[in-house]
Amino acid sequence: MDVEKFIEPSSTYHMLGSDDPYSYAQNSEYQKQLVVSAEELIFELIDKHLDIEKPSFDPNKIFRIGDFGCSIGPNTFFAVENIIKSVENKYKYKSNIKNPRIPEYHVFFNDHVDNDFNALFRNIPITRKYFPAGVPGSFHGRLFPNATLHFVHCSTALHWLSRIPKEVTETNSSAFNKGRIHYTGAKKEVKEVYSTQYRKDIKSFLSARAQELVPGGLMVLVILGFPGGVLPSESSIGIGFNILGSCLEDMVQMGKITEEEVDSFNLPFYYPSPSELKALIEENGCFNIERIERLSEPMKNEKQNLNILIKVCVSHLRAVIGGLIEEHFGNEIVEELFQLHMKKLHENPMMFDEKYRKEANYFMFLKQKSHL
Amino acid sequence: MDVEKFIEPSSTYHMLGSDDPYSYAQNSEYQKQLVVSAEELIFELIDKHLDIEKPSFDPNKIFRIGDFGCSIGPNTFFAVENIIKSVENKYKYKSNIKNPRIPEYHVFFNDHVDNDFNALFRNIPITRKYFPAGVPGSFHGRLFPNATLHFVHCSTALHWLSRIPKEVTETNSSAFNKGRIHYTGAKKEVKEVYSTQYRKDIKSFLSARAQELVPGGLMVLVILGFPGGVLPSESSIGIGFNILGSCLEDMVQMGKITEEEVDSFNLPFYYPSPSELKALIEENGCFNIERIERLSEPMKNEKQNLNILIKVCVSHLRAVIGGLIEEHFGNEIVEELFQLHMKKLHENPMMFDEKYRKEANYFMFLKQKSHL
Repeated sequence: MDVEKFIEPSSTYHMLGSDDPYSYAQNSEYQKQLVVSAEELIFELIDKHLDIEKPSFDPNKIFRIGDFGCSIGPNTFFAVENIIKSVENKYKYKSNIKNPRIPEYHVFFNDHVDNDFNALFRNIPITRKYFPAGVPGSFHGRLFPNATLHFVHCSTALHWLSRIPKEVTETNSSAFNKGRIHYTGAKKEVKEVYSTQYRKDIKSFLSARAQELVPGGLMVLVILGFPGGVLPSESSIGIGFNILGSCLEDMVQMGKITEEEVDSFNLPFYYPSPSELKALIEENGCFNIERIERLSEPMKNEKQNLNILIKVCVSHLRAVIGGLIEEHFGNEIVEELFQLHMKKLHENPMMFDEKYRKEANYFMFLKQKSHL
Repeated sequence: MDVEKFIEPSSTYHMLGSDDPYSYAQNSEYQKQLVVSAEELIFELIDKHLDIEKPSFDPNKIFRIGDFGCSIGPNTFFAVENIIKSVENKYKYKSNIKNPRIPEYHVFFNDHVDNDFNALFRNIPITRKYFPAGVPGSFHGRLFPNATLHFVHCSTALHWLSRIPKEVTETNSSAFNKGRIHYTGAKKEVKEVYSTQYRKDIKSFLSARAQELVPGGLMVLVILGFPGGVLPSESSIGIGFNILGSCLEDMVQMGKITEEEVDSFNLPFYYPSPSELKALIEENGCFNIERIERLSEPMKNEKQNLNILIKVCVSHLRAVIGGLIEEHFGNEIVEELFQLHMKKLHENPMMFDEKYRKEANYFMFLKQKSHL
């Protein structure tokens, strides 16, 4: 047995745990709305594509579901409940036999080893209809034995890279990302090395999941990306990152952190276009793409007070990247940085303007090619 | 599907987590030596009883191992490694075919939802040959789908009751355990209600595991108990509990805690005799008993300085029951209580006398009756 494949890629990314006001659990309403808007699609596509007559899906056996990048809940629980409801519907009403059996469900919640699994486990609903388990480790590597899972779910997690491409922090590299914290607005070499890393990561993810899924197993991905042709610097996400970067620059001026610290800090996020992602999936060759759909934008029709919008935005960003900031710059600057960020967004709230909301969430429904 | 079976019995028992000096990981040398002394027996008995020719044990499939009451390691990792080594030996050298396949291993680490799974996950060895998962919940209930596991391991965990029998805290009950914290030295009614609770708990455990194991699945239990006829009050464990109880009484006299608090505190441990346990397993009827053996006593031949012995003993007890004490009496008294306990053991070290070391560890190797 190859021990290599069990070794965790070096990475310490995770959401802020526990139930404090800056935790992911308290700041993921946007993600929740995505889960809700994917619900009907999942129901329809499970009905269409789940091959309950095939031996892999024998209802006398166990139906195993994996959620990758689960954080500490509750969105992962909503997603899993919806998948189970959809699978149950298929077994109950679409079977050729009279009193069809329903399989038992074994559900695996995956996230990085630094995720707060204690909080996740405390949050699992008591009225669940499944047996839960937690799986620590990077989803860019193998996490399950061969042909274990029947359904994979991964929502708004795949924009996390497994690592920052090293060139962006090397002063002698043409992709050195001086004074910036992301490829947004940076020179093209920076975007290129981010893109190369993303390509590697997506391929690792797809190959690992293809082996872990049973023949004909299903996978839902919800991917945060940009429509073709949109520049990140013209989007609210990109504008937000640039403002955060300028806050760090201000803190250099104030002598709170060093220029070198900012130069060596980069956000590990990449946002593909749907056609870029489609090409990567086709190149990988392990999955048929059954559906790609742009999801309606969460919270779009909620006319909210700008003060509230800014507060929600900063709280969410802090839940997601607070850990990265703390690890790189130390705990002391976190509070001040996000206060400064909030102040700057009040001074310049352009990222909340409708015309910059160009990022989009793409729903993808894949089916493992059963000849694997 | 019956939701009832997923609901956790009320209980918050768990070992102290993390890597602090009072944690279970730092204070479980005794348990480690038990794992080591069970190693050879497990190797021999897997070789003898693992039915690798049966469909449930098809090497093209996955071999699933569950360790129940795993705490945060490292003993659980030693145990799992030994089981895998033994299983691999059987597949490699005892198969009828030439280049036999070896299955992949999926390993499930179970403990209460309050166990520190974050610490457990950080501690999993990097060079493991298996895919790990954590399973939160009481092992007195169902934790896995039907016919999932091939091998169950549970070492020095089954003496934990799922709850304190309520009669021992009811002032109007004949089993009210006034002024004591355990059935050691108490009136016979107290022992009886502890025994009744143990009977229920063992039956729940066996029935749950029998359903979760594949036909012919194997189970190792290591049980801390007393040989028939030995009174707990004549054993070092019992003497230790009585001294701890007297420390609590002293703290009542000092006005640090109330008499009612002591009267309502009882340790959730029961130590059966091997014949009592054997009768319960036979009555349950789901397993054949392939072997019962008394393990050699850990650390017996290590002649240690009394001061060190007392320190190790108090640290171990604190790792195991510190959480219970804290929950019942509050955090403030913990340090003082164990200091007092240490002092009293120095004044009266009789529990360390060879003649009182009457508790014993029983190794049991069970095989699920395959007609289930």
